[in-house]
Amino acid sequence: MSEEKKVSSNVVWHQATVDRQARETMNGHKSVILWFTGLSGSGKSTLAHAVEEKLHELKCRTYVLDGDNIRHGLCGDLGFSDQDRVENIRRIGEVAKLFLESGVISLTAFISPFRADRDNVRHITSDEDFFEIYCKCSLDICESRDVKGLYKKARAGEIKEFTGINSPYEEPLNPEVTVDTGTETLEESAEKVLNLLIERGIIQR
Amino acid sequence: MSEEKKVSSNVVWHQATVDRQARETMNGHKSVILWFTGLSGSGKSTLAHAVEEKLHELKCRTYVLDGDNIRHGLCGDLGFSDQDRVENIRRIGEVAKLFLESGVISLTAFISPFRADRDNVRHITSDEDFFEIYCKCSLDICESRDVKGLYKKARAGEIKEFTGINSPYEEPLNPEVTVDTGTETLEESAEKVLNLLIERGIIQR
Repeated sequence: MSEEKKVSSNVVWHQATVDRQARETMNGHKSVILWFTGLSGSGKSTLAHAVEEKLHELKCRTYVLDGDNIRHGLCGDLGFSDQDRVENIRRIGEVAKLFLESGVISLTAFISPFRADRDNVRHITSDEDFFEIYCKCSLDICESRDVKGLYKKARAGEIKEFTGINSPYEEPLNPEVTVDTGTETLEESAEKVLNLLIERGIIQR
Repeated sequence: MSEEKKVSSNVVWHQATVDRQARETMNGHKSVILWFTGLSGSGKSTLAHAVEEKLHELKCRTYVLDGDNIRHGLCGDLGFSDQDRVENIRRIGEVAKLFLESGVISLTAFISPFRADRDNVRHITSDEDFFEIYCKCSLDICESRDVKGLYKKARAGEIKEFTGINSPYEEPLNPEVTVDTGTETLEESAEKVLNLLIERGIIQR
């Protein structure tokens, strides 16, 4: 029966194998997760976007995950309790892993204050795939910037569990890069990240 | 103070604008969500991978989201209750939207039985961005294939709320494409999808 044959051919079709390596070859660069972590106001998102711009100029496929596209979408159901923060970072890590498989360099810009949560993302990927970038900046400087006015609100008690004020930030122990966003220029910090990617063979100039 | 100046320059940096259009231009094709829906065993994942292979040959950037990479990762905390199914599809829709913004053609292969859930994904994107592809196949054929042995378990009462058996499947009302995976060959179905993408100006041969 011809219909039977067709149905059967549908089922036994060899699973197509467009895999990460095939995508990386097409892109001309490897994929990786660039995980920016640091206090609110430390310049994570600004740096991530600056690095993305440089990568884009080098014809790399990139995507920045940050509060703008995550907090109102995928994680719109989560608040800021410890439990919700853990779930927030878990989901972001899983999404970054999907982008990794898709051949895209993803840049995540979240405070991600807890060491265990960041380590979990490293563990669902690998040391070769996960670059932790510590945006080091003193609380004083971050608070003096206060771009979003959040520190003022936290000091006034209007925001509870605000990282650095009444909720801890756990510094990375062995980040792939530390950028001193309090003293370096944005250009200097971005170049540090770019140079790491070149050293590790992820991209080429 | 030079340090002050540097700090300030970090803050006022113009937000980089690598946007969807810039990515699409680099890729040489538009991004879109190809949402495959249909009964278990209707060939959604097989078809999605076949379409992806054709797109990859045309140098398109693609990624398939299916049970293999979602159910154990991002949605590993969800079960199969109605509530969890809704949340499952919501998250997949949000992730597909992120891929859309990143310039990648994402292909999602999930039963996604509820019309409202699929429509929600359409609404967080747009009619231009969301192509619903109905993998139409009779329950008889799907059940006779029973690749994963799930229908047998559902009939035996070992799986509750199994779509088509004791949980409803709501057919798309106005899908962008209907492929009859019960009678068409995989090649025919995949070509239908490719032709739609060409007609709509998403890709070029």
